Amino acid sequence: MANGMYEIISRKRDGLELEREEIAFVISGYVKGDIPDYQVAAWLMAVYIRGMNGRELADLTAIMLDSGDRISLDGVPGKKIDKHSTGGVGDKISFVVAPLLAACGVRVPMLSGRGLGHTGGTLDKLEAIPGMNVFLTPEKFRDTLAATGMVICGQTENIVPADRKIYALRDATATVSCLPLIASSIMSKKLALGSDGIVLDVKTGSGAFMKDEQDSILLCQTMVAIGAKSGRPTLGIISSMDQPLGRAVGNSLEIIESIEALKGRGPDDVMQVTYALGWCMLQAAGKTAAYARAVGMFQEAIASGRALGVFRSFIAAQGGDPRVCDDYSLLPAARQQTEFLAPSSGHIARIDSYAVGMAAIDIGAGRRKKEDAVAYGSGFVFHANVGDKIRKGQKLVTVHSDRPEQTPAVQERLGKAIQIGPRPVDRPKMVLHLVDKDGVHPWPY
Amino acid sequence: MANGMYEIISRKRDGLELEREEIAFVISGYVKGDIPDYQVAAWLMAVYIRGMNGRELADLTAIMLDSGDRISLDGVPGKKIDKHSTGGVGDKISFVVAPLLAACGVRVPMLSGRGLGHTGGTLDKLEAIPGMNVFLTPEKFRDTLAATGMVICGQTENIVPADRKIYALRDATATVSCLPLIASSIMSKKLALGSDGIVLDVKTGSGAFMKDEQDSILLCQTMVAIGAKSGRPTLGIISSMDQPLGRAVGNSLEIIESIEALKGRGPDDVMQVTYALGWCMLQAAGKTAAYARAVGMFQEAIASGRALGVFRSFIAAQGGDPRVCDDYSLLPAARQQTEFLAPSSGHIARIDSYAVGMAAIDIGAGRRKKEDAVAYGSGFVFHANVGDKIRKGQKLVTVHSDRPEQTPAVQERLGKAIQIGPRPVDRPKMVLHLVDKDGVHPWPY
Repeated sequence: MANGMYEIISRKRDGLELEREEIAFVISGYVKGDIPDYQVAAWLMAVYIRGMNGRELADLTAIMLDSGDRISLDGVPGKKIDKHSTGGVGDKISFVVAPLLAACGVRVPMLSGRGLGHTGGTLDKLEAIPGMNVFLTPEKFRDTLAATGMVICGQTENIVPADRKIYALRDATATVSCLPLIASSIMSKKLALGSDGIVLDVKTGSGAFMKDEQDSILLCQTMVAIGAKSGRPTLGIISSMDQPLGRAVGNSLEIIESIEALKGRGPDDVMQVTYALGWCMLQAAGKTAAYARAVGMFQEAIASGRALGVFRSFIAAQGGDPRVCDDYSLLPAARQQTEFLAPSSGHIARIDSYAVGMAAIDIGAGRRKKEDAVAYGSGFVFHANVGDKIRKGQKLVTVHSDRPEQTPAVQERLGKAIQIGPRPVDRPKMVLHLVDKDGVHPWPY
Repeated sequence: MANGMYEIISRKRDGLELEREEIAFVISGYVKGDIPDYQVAAWLMAVYIRGMNGRELADLTAIMLDSGDRISLDGVPGKKIDKHSTGGVGDKISFVVAPLLAACGVRVPMLSGRGLGHTGGTLDKLEAIPGMNVFLTPEKFRDTLAATGMVICGQTENIVPADRKIYALRDATATVSCLPLIASSIMSKKLALGSDGIVLDVKTGSGAFMKDEQDSILLCQTMVAIGAKSGRPTLGIISSMDQPLGRAVGNSLEIIESIEALKGRGPDDVMQVTYALGWCMLQAAGKTAAYARAVGMFQEAIASGRALGVFRSFIAAQGGDPRVCDDYSLLPAARQQTEFLAPSSGHIARIDSYAVGMAAIDIGAGRRKKEDAVAYGSGFVFHANVGDKIRKGQKLVTVHSDRPEQTPAVQERLGKAIQIGPRPVDRPKMVLHLVDKDGVHPWPY
């Protein structure tokens, strides 16, 4: 057994391709406790530096997947398309795109996570809604999806337990930011859910997990290839996370912005990303439509109130109070609002989303450590975005916070995050690339 | 603390140069138990793949050295030159060269190890001599050196304890065969002994630790550079371990061959390597002499009996019975001798030293595992060497063994190890290169 592992470490150390049986030996041996931490740590570093090819990755993903339970969606009628984002600051697209797709006849099942560090978490945002339950049994998950067309739930311990154990070791051994390991970790969890297709939103830029655009493209291509090798139609986009997405950052505030979007008042950047992902989800569901026609369908779903209706039923089905859709005062609110004023006149050249995410932690909207509690009402509402012309003294951000002692520090962070220049600036392009099994294409719309 | 280690792993993972303080943090933290195995395992794999430059290596070596005790040789008069071999099959040069140098006024202190796998160990060979004590206190070590001109002793637990702990982890994580880690492991132990200079014999070929000649050269250069950076004059040779060194393989048998060499009856290959290392040791001691003149001095030390006299006193000083020099029957002997006969006529083209070393384990002359006992009397005596013309049925090897049940297997192994060809073959060149602080030079003599 020890010899087996020694040989497998040596082979990956020397840059050789591992057999499926070798990868299975490592993963199952580690999960069972037969292989010690230090041998897996050495193997992970070898994988980090030497990489894995497409075949190894597909095998690794399948083996991780086999380490735990799957959630079957058999019996839920219609096409079921899962959507995954690599996370960012102000990313509330799930709450907008899922109701739109459900309103267009595509069911959207999602397993989501909590926020950590500068990025927010879908489950935390949902929990801002009074009564909302984000942990469902597989039966309740299927029933909600069948009844309302969408469902969002946290992962249970039994989904890909190998990933949980390996992630903890990667976190201690500087092997987290490794493309094959990230891709197999994400895709094994996606594949554990029995959807008909997967659409990926890989963020790039300051507030993204992958800051470099080429790295983001490579990660997206890798995951799309794993999906294809696993027989699951998978599409992806690369979208900008250089500035926060939308105007609101913070749990309650982002729920409000999502409901506003479903009422037809979504900010341009939010709608651009929503429409792009929605169009990909239609494709993955086999409902091919010209982009303009798809956008028309989505706009009609909003205008008719059907999309908001889906969101209401979804909230009610998961135990939440659907009246929040009409009365935002039912959501948790911060006690204090202060304004950040433009320190000079000019044009907004940049809003550093990473810095905004870190400022959100200061006021309790995010978590520094897993154990931290979240202040649901805290956050920021931006009144201007990159490309806007502003004048000195104008309100740029409303800060919602229960921590007045943090106000000077937050004001200073926002001052550094928001760059104002003398010259006009183009609005940033939100969707950069489309990735499908044939390769990477500049986003055409 | 964890952050510190995480950052250090990341930096080496990305191929960056580590600061001295960072290397010290890893080594001292691991020895103290503050840093867990799995983090050090990931770091070792990163070092394995990314390497270390000369500065990092000199620092690593010095830090390892600082983890334990040193053996001071202050008060021992004269120049003290340490000689180290990377090990092989039939390597008994220490027992020949140390008495020669002592007879020429250079003192030779050595810390040695046991055999494992196909390579023999200096301590095991010495312990074939009845009464011989290979574990001495530092005081006894100094006294023996001062009194007899040579001393050979096992390493204590307190010499470079960091190496012991790290080696065990490397052994489990496929990070043993890593040049910087090998070089710093060897050199930290050499530097722990307060000699005036170090001479290295890096073996290359089938029976060597490093089978590839370029790897052997690189290892030797790396160690010579570490010695220079540490202010310790260091020279090295690259010598052939493609075939066993000398005619005898096995503990008692090699002691006999060494004594024969000190009586002027050493095989050519043994004497070539002995003279080359002896000449380097004279250089390191500052006693520069033309090669031919040095060989003349060594031959005179043999002819006069002075060298054998040193070896006798050395044995007596470490508790052994010096009468073995005159009566080989006092050494342990195997109960049975069988002959391996030439299966065909021709010229010996090759004797695979690795295969011979593995056959030696079969008859108990070597160890498969650390815990194995050694049969001191077992081994092989070759009656012909590479380049010799032989005829079918001629005795090629006498097998000394207490394990008659192994005879067929050993005969088969020897048959495969010894290649006989139709055409004349040159005798192999034993000493290939000289390595000093200026670089690598073809061995000129």
